[in-house]
Formats: sequence, C-alpha cells, structure tokens
Amino acid sequence: MTHKDSTSLRERLRLPPGLPVDLSRYDAAATPGGPHGKAAGKAATGRIGERLAVLQERLWAASTGGDRRRVLLVLQGMDTSGKGGTVKHVIGLLNPSGCRITAFTAPTDEERAHPFLWRVERALPIPGELGIFDRSHYEDVLVARVRDLAPAPEIARRYEQIKRFERSLTDDGVTLVKCFLHLSYEEQRRRLLKRLDKPEKRWKFAASDIDDRALWPAFQEAYGIALERCGTPNAPWYLIPADHKWYRNWAVSTLLLEHFEELDPRYPEADFDVAECRRRLLEQP
Amino acid sequence: MTHKDSTSLRERLRLPPGLPVDLSRYDAAATPGGPHGKAAGKAATGRIGERLAVLQERLWAASTGGDRRRVLLVLQGMDTSGKGGTVKHVIGLLNPSGCRITAFTAPTDEERAHPFLWRVERALPIPGELGIFDRSHYEDVLVARVRDLAPAPEIARRYEQIKRFERSLTDDGVTLVKCFLHLSYEEQRRRLLKRLDKPEKRWKFAASDIDDRALWPAFQEAYGIALERCGTPNAPWYLIPADHKWYRNWAVSTLLLEHFEELDPRYPEADFDVAECRRRLLEQP
Repeated sequence: MTHKDSTSLRERLRLPPGLPVDLSRYDAAATPGGPHGKAAGKAATGRIGERLAVLQERLWAASTGGDRRRVLLVLQGMDTSGKGGTVKHVIGLLNPSGCRITAFTAPTDEERAHPFLWRVERALPIPGELGIFDRSHYEDVLVARVRDLAPAPEIARRYEQIKRFERSLTDDGVTLVKCFLHLSYEEQRRRLLKRLDKPEKRWKFAASDIDDRALWPAFQEAYGIALERCGTPNAPWYLIPADHKWYRNWAVSTLLLEHFEELDPRYPEADFDVAECRRRLLEQP
Repeated sequence: MTHKDSTSLRERLRLPPGLPVDLSRYDAAATPGGPHGKAAGKAATGRIGERLAVLQERLWAASTGGDRRRVLLVLQGMDTSGKGGTVKHVIGLLNPSGCRITAFTAPTDEERAHPFLWRVERALPIPGELGIFDRSHYEDVLVARVRDLAPAPEIARRYEQIKRFERSLTDDGVTLVKCFLHLSYEEQRRRLLKRLDKPEKRWKFAASDIDDRALWPAFQEAYGIALERCGTPNAPWYLIPADHKWYRNWAVSTLLLEHFEELDPRYPEADFDVAECRRRLLEQP
C-alpha cells in the first residue's frame, strides 16, 4: 500500500472540487485503500455494515428528538456499473425502514412538465433517514446532454441549478455522499455479455444499452464536466473504481461509515419521567 | 407436534373468514408449526430469507415483462408487538430496492382532509414490488374506534369500505398478506419496561404507550371485530403469536415465502435477438 491507513477513504476518493476531471486517467480496476482481495473485501464490508446499522438507528433515534440531519447517497455510473448491486449489497446491510430508495428512470409526462428538480425534491429523505438515489438529477446533465434532450443553454443553466439545490440541502442538514461508479469500457462489455448469456439476467438487458455504449466517449465527457462543475467542498464527488464489485461495495460502505461517524448521531434524552413511567407500568393490573 | 409438516403455515395461522375472533383464546407464546427453539428458528429464518430474495427478484423481473402482480404485507399489532422488528429482521433479508415500506403514524391535516384510504392508496406497491405497511388503514377502525376519533356510523361504514378496497386490490393482482402480531399483556409490560431501562431504547417509548395499555381490553375487542369483519377468502387475516420474536420472524417470513411460491414468478423472455445483440457487442471497438 502506498498510503497510510490513517488516510480516510473520503480524502482518497474525493475529486478535488473545481478541477477538470479526465476520467481516462483513473484506473477502474484499482482498489485504493481497500482490503487485499475479494474474500477480505466481502468480510470487511459485512463488518462495516454492522457498524453502519448501529449509526443508522442512532440517526433515526436522534430525529425523534428533533435532530433534522439526514444523509443522501447519490449513485451515478454507466449501465452495469453496479448502482443496483450497491443498493442490494450495501444498503441491504441496513434497516430498510430507515432507507428511502428511489430509482430514477426516464421522466414521466407529468415530471417533464415540471422543472427537472421537481421529482428529485419529492424523493428526498426526511430527518433521520438515509436516502438513496439510483441515478438522480445528474441524468439531466448527462443523458440529456449526450442525447440532446434539452436545448444547450438549458443544460448549461442546470449545472448552476444543481449546485444551488445541493447547497440548500447541505444548509438544511443533508449530508450528501455523491458516488460516481467508474467502470471501464471492457468491463462493461463483459457484464453486458453476461446478461445476454444467462437467461435469468436477460431481463436486465435492453438493446438500447448497445446504442448508449456507442456513445461511450460522449458520456465520459459529460460525466467529466458534471463532476467538475458540480463538485463543491460541501458536496464533493467521489470516484469509485467499480470494475471490482467487492471493492465498489467496500468503498461505498466505507464512505457512508465515515460520513455517519462524523455526524455522530446521539440517542435523545427521555422527555418523560422514567421512574414515574416505570411505577405506572408496574402498578397496572 | 400435533400437525403434520405438510400443513402449510397459511392454513395453520389463517383466521377463518367471517367467524367471530376471541383473541383471549389464542396463546401469544405459542409456536405453531415452528422450529424447535430460538437458535433453530433464527437459522431457519435466514434460509427462508435466501429463498425469498430469489423469488422477490423474479417477481421484479417478471414485472419488466408486463406481469402486474405485487405483494402487500400488512403488519398490525399493539405497541411493542414487533412490527418494526419484523421489518428489520424479515424484510432486511430482501433486496431493499424492491421493497416499498410505509410506516403509518397519526394522519397529517392534509391526510385527514381526504377519505381515510387516500394516504394508503398512495403508498401501494407497484408491479413487481413487495409493499410493507407498518400499521395501515386498519388503524382507522382500531385506534379510531377505541379513542372515538370518528363518529360511530362512520367507523361502521369503514369495515365495508376496507373490504371493497382490498377486493379491488386482489382483483388487480395484489397478493395481500395481513398479519396480526398477537402479543400478551404481560409480555408488553416486559417490553415497555425494557425500553425504559435501556437508555438506547428510550426513544422508542412514549408516555402515551401507558395510556393505550390502560385501554387494552378495548383494543383487543376492536381487533377482534376488525379481524372478523375484514377477513375474506381472498384476503384473510393471519394471527401470528408474537411473544417469541424468533417465532414471529420465522412465521412472517414463512407466510411470505408460501405466498411467493404460489405466485411462482418467472423471468420474462427476451424481447430482443440475443445472438444479434451478442454480435453487435463483440463488434464494437
């Protein structure tokens, strides 16, 4: 390992806000700061999950005492980069009651009739919750840019709108954890072929995935721009090398854990007289 | 054991629709059809969870091919009966992406301004999902009846409204699994005392829990009426003895599994030419 263990994963994976991002310079098969290999990675993720579950309950408990804080995990990445797998394997370690998961697909007619952030605002976590976005408002500067789904000046405005939106969230007690799952072109091919070859995976495949893949360079460029323009000190982007699923799961769970540990949510004090309640309970027939 | 293993748990725990229900005749500490003891129960629940997760994914996959079916688990029971614990330990075994969980608390002003089923309709699972209601529309004939939150004739109408509502759901492809978590008065006292004694559990306690407990007989009667009037052949109620948490978790997961197995969801056929897609993928640079 080239880094000391004391370096947080946040520091290691954070894209420096405001600097240009050239994705071709990042190795998608890297495992920075991670355990040594798949077995160790899976075991470590399980242990992290247990710690996360405790802190998740504490965050919820704190909200019952008036703590407005909540966490929002944003997952972005190309097809097969593992957004759904991360939800299954990382979020699956937590109490589902406290998780508000939204998978954003193509907007409906009603959603299109509203400003692009409208549907996102309706999916936000409430105090105490961990919100999870599988795709997000970033699609409106990614696929929208690559496929010309909106006029160029409109797309240009959206970066600033997103920054203002996220700033209002962080001001209001939302901890944003924005993860870009960085996949290589070759690994995507392997994963798409696997979806085709296994009958029980075919439902995840769409012929349009091949068309999107033909636009790979345009998508990488659009990601680079979005990561650069919308990474801020309060809401930075993290680049997660995602060719190794075990590393991706370990990294996302570790990033969540570091953020939850910083929040350090506390159980609220009782707002009732414990001794008195105890007595009343024992006196009941 | 007095029953053969071939008896499904559904048959065993189902309250016969239309017959009077006297809850005092059911032992909340019973473990009908269950594994022998806590350790075996926990292990069995883990294995059931793995099978459930596979069927859950299949139900979701089927929905992408046009299958409209979905499942709705309704959890009702007195305070501390383990509704939240069931979500944590049973639903926690599944892929959270496919679960739509709603905990119903006291209705907001807006919800009160609408018919009582309005907020429930908005929380229904979509095709392929497992919906989970932690409390439900039944509160409107339970706490509403016991605490006179609505006029008696209005409450009386609601039983029929609930039956019609649920009939429209089952007609439309919803499998309803309605579980009453049956807790004993003494076990509730123990659990409330535990919440008081452990500082990290106090946030779950409210002084109003003691007031509700003073109304125990009225709640039991209200439950008996609701279970009798709203149990139908298509949407029966299941009575889950809930004094043993391990049995409660095993029973709810087993009931879910039996229902999912009956649904027997299938992966959809590919609606694209697999060989052609394969060729295109390999030809891309």
